[in-house]
This record gives sequence, C-alpha cells and structure tokens, in this order.
Amino acid sequence: MGFKLTTIEEFESATDRLLETGKKVGADSWQMRVKNQTPHCKFGEQGICCRICSMGPCRITPKAPRGICGCDAHGIVGRNFLRFTAGGAATHSDHGREICHTLHCASRDGSYHVKDAEKLIRIAGEWGVETEGKDIYDLAHEMSELALMEYGKPFGISRWLSRAPEHTRELWKKAEIEPRAIDREVSCAMHMTHMGCSSLPEALVRQALRAGMADGWGGSMCGTEFSDVMFGTPMPVDTEANLGVMKEDEVNIIVHGHDPSLSEMICEYAGDPEMIALAKSLGAKGINVAGVCCTSNEVAMRRGVPMAGNFLQQENVVLTGACEAIVVDVQCIFPALGPLSKCFHTKFITTSPIAQMPDSDFIRFSAESAAENAKKIVRTAVENYVNRKSDLVHIPQMKQKATVGYSVEAIVKTLDGVTNSQVDVLGTTKPLIECITSGVIRGAVAMVGCNNPRVRPDSAHVGLMKKLIQNDIILVLSGCSAQAAAKAGLMDKQAKDLCGAGLKRVCELADIPPVLHMGSCVDISRMMVLASELAKDSGLNISQLPLVGCAPEWMSEKAVSIGNYVVATGIDTFLGVAPQVTGSSEVTGLLTEGIRDWVEAAYTVETDIDKLCDAMITRIEEKRAALGI
Amino acid sequence: MGFKLTTIEEFESATDRLLETGKKVGADSWQMRVKNQTPHCKFGEQGICCRICSMGPCRITPKAPRGICGCDAHGIVGRNFLRFTAGGAATHSDHGREICHTLHCASRDGSYHVKDAEKLIRIAGEWGVETEGKDIYDLAHEMSELALMEYGKPFGISRWLSRAPEHTRELWKKAEIEPRAIDREVSCAMHMTHMGCSSLPEALVRQALRAGMADGWGGSMCGTEFSDVMFGTPMPVDTEANLGVMKEDEVNIIVHGHDPSLSEMICEYAGDPEMIALAKSLGAKGINVAGVCCTSNEVAMRRGVPMAGNFLQQENVVLTGACEAIVVDVQCIFPALGPLSKCFHTKFITTSPIAQMPDSDFIRFSAESAAENAKKIVRTAVENYVNRKSDLVHIPQMKQKATVGYSVEAIVKTLDGVTNSQVDVLGTTKPLIECITSGVIRGAVAMVGCNNPRVRPDSAHVGLMKKLIQNDIILVLSGCSAQAAAKAGLMDKQAKDLCGAGLKRVCELADIPPVLHMGSCVDISRMMVLASELAKDSGLNISQLPLVGCAPEWMSEKAVSIGNYVVATGIDTFLGVAPQVTGSSEVTGLLTEGIRDWVEAAYTVETDIDKLCDAMITRIEEKRAALGI
Repeated sequence: MGFKLTTIEEFESATDRLLETGKKVGADSWQMRVKNQTPHCKFGEQGICCRICSMGPCRITPKAPRGICGCDAHGIVGRNFLRFTAGGAATHSDHGREICHTLHCASRDGSYHVKDAEKLIRIAGEWGVETEGKDIYDLAHEMSELALMEYGKPFGISRWLSRAPEHTRELWKKAEIEPRAIDREVSCAMHMTHMGCSSLPEALVRQALRAGMADGWGGSMCGTEFSDVMFGTPMPVDTEANLGVMKEDEVNIIVHGHDPSLSEMICEYAGDPEMIALAKSLGAKGINVAGVCCTSNEVAMRRGVPMAGNFLQQENVVLTGACEAIVVDVQCIFPALGPLSKCFHTKFITTSPIAQMPDSDFIRFSAESAAENAKKIVRTAVENYVNRKSDLVHIPQMKQKATVGYSVEAIVKTLDGVTNSQVDVLGTTKPLIECITSGVIRGAVAMVGCNNPRVRPDSAHVGLMKKLIQNDIILVLSGCSAQAAAKAGLMDKQAKDLCGAGLKRVCELADIPPVLHMGSCVDISRMMVLASELAKDSGLNISQLPLVGCAPEWMSEKAVSIGNYVVATGIDTFLGVAPQVTGSSEVTGLLTEGIRDWVEAAYTVETDIDKLCDAMITRIEEKRAALGI
Repeated sequence: MGFKLTTIEEFESATDRLLETGKKVGADSWQMRVKNQTPHCKFGEQGICCRICSMGPCRITPKAPRGICGCDAHGIVGRNFLRFTAGGAATHSDHGREICHTLHCASRDGSYHVKDAEKLIRIAGEWGVETEGKDIYDLAHEMSELALMEYGKPFGISRWLSRAPEHTRELWKKAEIEPRAIDREVSCAMHMTHMGCSSLPEALVRQALRAGMADGWGGSMCGTEFSDVMFGTPMPVDTEANLGVMKEDEVNIIVHGHDPSLSEMICEYAGDPEMIALAKSLGAKGINVAGVCCTSNEVAMRRGVPMAGNFLQQENVVLTGACEAIVVDVQCIFPALGPLSKCFHTKFITTSPIAQMPDSDFIRFSAESAAENAKKIVRTAVENYVNRKSDLVHIPQMKQKATVGYSVEAIVKTLDGVTNSQVDVLGTTKPLIECITSGVIRGAVAMVGCNNPRVRPDSAHVGLMKKLIQNDIILVLSGCSAQAAAKAGLMDKQAKDLCGAGLKRVCELADIPPVLHMGSCVDISRMMVLASELAKDSGLNISQLPLVGCAPEWMSEKAVSIGNYVVATGIDTFLGVAPQVTGSSEVTGLLTEGIRDWVEAAYTVETDIDKLCDAMITRIEEKRAALGI
C-alpha cells in the first residue's frame, strides 16, 4: 500500500530548506551554534572541572591532580555526576508537583476534572486511603495533599516503592537507596556535593541512584499517575507526526514543554467556537494545535493532537513561517526561540515562573486561573494570524501516521484482547511473557530520551529501532525517542512489515505497531510499573527479564536521573552519548559495573550505534540463556 | 599589660614552619595546590561556562555569543549563580534539619537534652503551639516535627518570617521572595536552571534571593535556634584561639565541620573519666579537644572549647604532628586531610553519610546512637596517642585570649547591664540604638565568611576589623571571620584600646570586646534576628540602620546563600572576592544595584580591601546622614 518510512535524509533535506528561510531573515540556528561551540572544553566533557566553590575553578591535569581543597578527579567527577542527577530529579519531580497541585485545584465545575476516577480510587487503595462513600473530588484533594507530602514528609520513604517486586525492594533497602521525601533527596545531593563534603565516589554514586529513585519512583510517578487521573489514562489513538501536520491555511499554535496542565487547556480553548469564529473572521480556516517535545507526547496520547516534532526540531516549527504562537511551559525550551521568533511574526509565549526567557511574551499561567490564562493565550495566537508573512511560509509536506497511547493499562487491555478468556486470567502481562518465553518475541527495549547534536538527529533512535524490530525485539518508547519513531513512520501499524516474523505476528494479532508510545519523559515511570508487573506475573526478578533500557541521543540532566532509576530498578541501560564522567576510572567503573552489586544492573556506554545495538541484543540473549528460554 | 595583636606575618611564619614538616613527610598543601591550579579558567571565573546539559559544555566568547540551546551569557551566568546559591541553601538547611532531627531524639535520659527550656517555650509561643502543662520533651518532639515540616510543607511560607519587621515582610511579599518549604526552594532553583527553563536574569536572581531566604530565614534559623534549645543559648565565655591551644603532652582531638550534634558528644566523652584514665595509661596527661571551622565556633560559644583555627588552617592542625584525630562531620572539610593524615599518625575520622571521603576512617555517627559512636571515636583517638612520632611534633606557641558567645540573648542581657533600670525598659536593643544615634558608635558591620586563597589568609578580616573599630564601628562576627579575629586577639577585651574613643568607652562600660562572636555560619540567622530587633526597637526599617554586611574572604556556596538573605533582609553587603558573575553585565547590574528596588539593599564587590573598608564606612555614614544623626 505504498507504506514507506521517512528517512533521516528526508528529515534533513526538509530542515535544510527551512534553514534557507532562516538565512533569509538572519536567524541563528542550533546547527550554527554547534559549530561555534565546537570543540568543547575537554575538562568539562570529562567531568574534571570543579566550580563548586570560589577558590577555583579547579581542573584536573597530570600536573595538578587535585583541586585546591584536595579533591581528586574521582571526587570531582562524582560530585558533578550527582549534581547532574539532582538537576534532573528536581526538574521531573517539580513537574509532578505541579500536577499534584493542579489536582488540588480540580473541581466539578472548574477547569480541571477527575476523568479517570477508577484510577484515582485504585491509587487511593494502594496508599491505604479510605474511598468508600467519598465524593471523588474530596478524594482527589485528599490524595493530592498526600502526594504533595511525598515531596517533603519528614519521615519514611516513597509510597510508590510498594509497587515494586519484593526482591527489588530488598535490594533498595540494602543499598540504602530507598528515596525519602523527594525534595530532601535533591537537597541531600546538593549538600553532599558542597565544598568539603563527600568526595568518595561510592557515596556520590549511591546518592545519585537515590536521587534518581526519588524521581522515577517519586516525582515522575506522581506526575504520570495524577495526570492520568485528571486528563484520562491514555488508550490507543491515531495521530500524525512531523512538520507536515502544520496547516498553511489555519492558525497554528504549537505547544511545547512538558506539563499537560497548560497544554490541555490550550487544546480546550483552541476548540472553543468563539476562538474558531475569531480565527475565521481573520481569514484562517480554523485553529490547529500541534506539539513539540513531551508536551506533544502528553496531548497526542490523550487527544490525538498531532506531533510537529521533537527536541532538535523546535526551531524548525518557527522556521515554517506559519507558526502563530509557540506556547511553552517548562524544560527543554531553547532560549533561542526568543530571538528566532523575532525574525518571524511568531509569538513566543512563556507561561511558567519556572521558565522565564528573554524576548518572550510572558502570560503567567496557573491552575487557579487556567481558563482565563488559556483563553488569553489562544486569543493572542489567533490575532497574530494577520501578521503572517506569506512569502516566508513553507511547511515541509512530510508526515506519518502513528498510533500512540500505550499506557500500562492500555497494554494490559491490548493483551487481554489476545487472551483466551476461557483459560487465561485477564488483566495481566502474562500473554506478553508467554510471547517472550516462547521466543516469538526475543525481548524488549525501553528506548527513551532526547536528541543531542553529538548524534545525527534521530538517526540513532530510528536506526536502533529498525534493527531491533527486525530481531523480534519489541520497543516501548517515550519522549523524543517516541517522536523520532512517529516521524519516521514506525508507529504506523504497517511498520509490522519491517519486523522479524515473530514480532510481526504479534503485531498482527494484537493490532499494534511494533514500537509502543508510552508517553512523555515523566512517563518512564510507566515503564517501571510495567517491568514490575512483568516480574510479578512471571515470578522472575526484574533484572532477569530480557529487557534493557536505551537512551541513544540523550542530552539533559533529566535523562541521567532517569537512567539512574532505570538501572536502580534492575534494568541494564545503554547510552549512546557518554556522561561527563570519563575523567574518573572509579566513577566510570561504578556506573558500568560496580553498581551491579547493589541493583543487579549497570550502564553500558557505546557511541558507535551499531555496536550499541549489538550490545543490547547480546544482553537480551544472555538474559534469555540464563533463564533457559 | 603587654597586650598585642598577633600579626598576619606571625600567622604566616608559623605556617611556614609547619610546611617544613610537611615537606619532610612528603605532604601536599593548599599552598602548593593553588600554584598548580593557577591561573584559573577564565570562563569559569566569569560564570560563562555552562555544563547543564550534555550538548555542551558551552562557553561564551565574542564569536560564540550563545550556547547550543541559544542561551546567552546573561542566562548562563544567572543560572550558575542560582545553582551556586541553591548549593549553599541546601547545605546550611540540611545542617538545620539534622539539628531538628536530633531534637526529635532528645530525651530526659538520652544523649540529647533540652538545656534551654525557656527558649523552646518562647519559640513554641511564636509558632502558636500550646505549651501549658506540656512535658518539655513532648513539646520538644512536637516542635521538632513542626520544624521538620518547614522543609517540606506543601502550603504556606516559612514560619520564621514572622520575626521580621512588618515593612521587610511586605517587601518580601511584593518581590515574591518569601520562601515556601525549604527543600522546595532548592528543587525549584534546580528546576529553573535545568536546560530549557529560565534564562531571564531577573527571574534567576529573584529565585536566588528566595533560596537564600529559605536558608537564613528557614534552615539556618532552625539550626541555630534548636541548637540553642539543646545545647544552651550561648552566653559570654572565655576561651583561647590559634594552634597554640593544642597540647604537646595530651591527646589532641580536633573537631572540625559544622554540626554540634557530633562535637557536643565528642566534648562530652573527652571528659569521661574512663577515657581520661585510658589516656593517662598511655602516657598522655589528658585529653584536649580543640576546634576548627564552625564546629569550633559552636563548642567555643557554648563550652569555651579552644579554637585551633579556621578554614585555611585545617591542614596546619595535622602538620603539628600532635593531632591524634581530626573528627569531622560536614562541610568545608578538605579532602586533602585524607592523604595528609596518612603522612602522620593522625586518624582522619569521617562520621556523616553526607561527607564521606577517601583515606578516612568512617565511624558513622547518628543521633540515635550518639553515645556509643562518640565513645568509639574518642577511644580511637586516645589509643592513637602511642603512635605519635615525637620528631614530627611542633606546635606553634601562638594563641590569644578571646571572649565569645554573643547570642542575641547575650547581647540584650549585656545591654541590660548598662541600662538605667530606673527609667529604661529591660530586654531590648535600645541602649545600642542610643549609642548609635548619639554617634558614640557610628554603626555596625556584620563580618562573616570563609578564607579564600585569593586573599592573603585572614588579612582582609583582621585588617578591616582594625580599621573599622578605630572608626567607632562595632563588629558582630561569625564563622571563619570570627576565628580570624580571635586568633589575632581582637576578641580579647583589651582590644578596646585599639578602638576609637566612642567604641572604647562602650566596650569598657559593657565589658565586651569590640568584635562580638555571634557563632557559626548558620548563626548568621542570629544577625538577622538582631537586625530585626534593632529595626523594631528603633522604629526604622532595617535598610535605614547604619549596618552593613561584609564577607571579605568568602569561598563557599553557603556564603553566597548567606549574602543573598542578608541583602534580601535589607542589609547592604560588601564582598572582597567577586562572585562568578562578571561575565554578565545584567546579572552583575541586578546584584549590585537592581535588586535594591526589591529589597532596599544590594551587593558591593571590591577586591581592594582598603577601598572595601572605605566603601563600608561611607555607606554607614550615608545611612546616618539620611537619618539626620
């Protein structure tokens, strides 16, 4: 039927065409800035530059093996690594906090509602909260307060840990990496890395795992779970991906960032008849909302809102000349969008006190006044349509179909569909385990993370996925990795034809694409729940499952925090970009091998993507062999 | 009577003699490491190096004015400054948390007691906690839980803010810098500085103030106040300072770090008859405990334990060859002490999970098992006496007398002593205000902070103090600044003879030294309380008082956090070392002038110490002139 993946070369030629427009208007681009910033500082790349006090900066060389305080390369690298993790853990978790806060504002007649009451009640059950006879909004408020307390409770460990298998929890306890209050782990990390505190790599790496755990089994899980409660738990839905989803004859509003509290409201008001009428009165045929980065994942998974692109495509959206407004909340937003938007008619609308940027229109958004704020933002975008310069408009006609929305609940439901309900129990992951045990599927890879100019954009994501599905390895995806897949066409169910025979058959039977979109970067918590369920349903430890994690093009602190909790959960994790730890053999040794003694998993770093792929397949086959399957 | 200050030259020649011993045993030293690390990286010094994601590191140059994400120098500098502050705020506050936790462990028959019940009851009153008929330990536990909640409460702002004058609180509210939960402000700072979040200098500097406030009017205040509750509110006590306090014929235990929970217990068990008997059985005449850094300030203020030295003297303690053990908890501990102690018989005993270091003996200390841990530590030290190598022993015979222990309560009590109780109200700061109004004292300087090899050690502290007291300006001191003064002899009451006529007379009348030791670095919260009381008692705003802050030799992140809350409290602050913000005119402009619009105070940076002194005197005189006094 003419199904064909979009190639990296095609992505690039579309970008090249847009960069020509950029040149015309004197715009800067990340491609140009990378050239200016290359080569990078080797001290920084290796993690052996310390700026933690003002006696320095100090840098480790053979002639200067210790900083002024006496800290050596291992201590400096370890501290930098822990701080990097703390940045990521704080960031994801603060997103989760905003969601809890939004839930606290939910009301029957307000902007935010409880859409998935069943899920709220289920979580309340897990937390030992009485639900019987309680108004669902009262329960929502009670739960949101408990969730907010997870950030600061003086005693005890994360409530979410109870979701993990017994064995995993024992490992965490023994390794002393059970996270206490989420924010406390961030503060603790900052304290340990202060001048004159910890310089022992083992201690620093241990806290890096605990801070990561506070993210994945704490803040991120709050973010995911209570987003589902308010906005609905994702179920499979069809959408489209790549810049071709933008529309030449409509008002294009791009939502970018992470927190669905904003983007859901923007989507809501973009569909408001009053706004559509306004758009029409200004000559547009309607209002088109599309997403970039994880905000895109959020609204695609729940509303089928199309995905304009991922991290390194954010400037392209503006370069189309057809973007009336790029509306952002927090994280991964190029400050470059400020000056870039000034080269076009585009309104760059910042909304969060957390992410304030020069050259932007700041329209402060809060859950308390969400409706009013969102309406103002949508109106600003629509009114800007008349300022579009038609000679600058070029939307690359390139997009692919995608089926997205594979929450754990959706996966289990899909599996129920292929279950023989006469003999099997419904509502488990057992059908998937059977596929794996029988060898129809060899294993699974959780592929996540960003783009990074150190890697040809999307090439590692897409290249790895193609090879893995050929090898009957199923993928669960999130974040910019998911968007790379969608843009390429790998989330089109027809992509089954690119799979090995086993996985192809599974895709046909279950009616799924071979790569499953599980959500945004906070939603990697879903993957932890899935891994836990697989372990419980199979009777195996998580570390025994033929399952690995992979972040081939990661760039952010969040990615390191994620990596740490994925590894801490017992899942070997493969990186295509080296963390800035190569200056210490001790820290590198801990991360790639030593921590295996604590959590039964570790990192593998391999910048050659072919080798990275082979290493993952080898690891999966090793795990199969160890199980005798 | 032959009173004479010890000079910087004398300090240095003592150090030189010790460094000769170091050379003999092949020891490294900070003096050597500074040489190896100089010149420092200019990008780091200016704050224009960004390592916040792994696309970089990026560095700003004229040819590369933006990082890969598009962030410019102002955003990069602002983010680095905010992270620097967050590191300091987390660190001080986590110390405070430990104190709250220790209070939670206090019991009538345990290691920790409520020594100042009156203070606990007073704070309970401030917090609206019922005290009537409550057992003091029940109250202590209730208060400790409330205090711990200050770190993580989901709603509301810091309880301690209510201590500030109304006008100051209004400024804070308007500027949106009232700190919420302490850890939240740290996490918020980390989130704002994550890749793709805030790059607007104003937003970053504002949060830097708020994070600082979470320290000084949050975590540090918890630390100070509940330390007083447990270990006693400091009152004037005589002690001695400088390396000459170490004893050639006794077991020398050096306590170093910050948290009195450890050092109080070490002092306790060093006085244990069993331990003293053990020491004697091994040939020592007794057990001598002396302090380094803020731990020293804590135990000097409450027990009169002598002060061996401040930050840049920590290696000297080991170089005497007479240090059986250097027992540390957290912060400002040179990792260099590990390898250095191996050149001698010294045991380098680390005790906190927060500060684990290579080449140390880790004896984990916790409030729950404090007695047992402390006893083990003291025993380890005592048993090590026999390993001392007498040919390496050299203790510089240099020390000064010092009167320390000027808590706010002690200052008020001292002032009561000079009050005419027939006409005046007792228990206020009014006598001090009268001295200032009348011009007998021109004003006050709060001098604080570390040493930094960028400044000839202690020279700025001592030089400034000498000139200021000559000019009838009284000083309140904390941290390593206080120790510099004590080592020099400025805390000897005889130092009054170095003052101008007005201040000299005040010293005589009140029987005080001209520089008042207010405690450790967390105790700068005491100075905030004092400033608030002065404002309330005088009817002036804090920013109107002829009072400035000064950190002439600061080096740590804590110092920046402190600076931020001192400025945010309305006190102009003078720095002798430039923060790493010079790469941004916008951030520099905000810190040195712009924030004055929010908080009525700002920073002055001047590395020429004479000019710094003149600038402070000028500012004080300007404030006097504005008041017409």
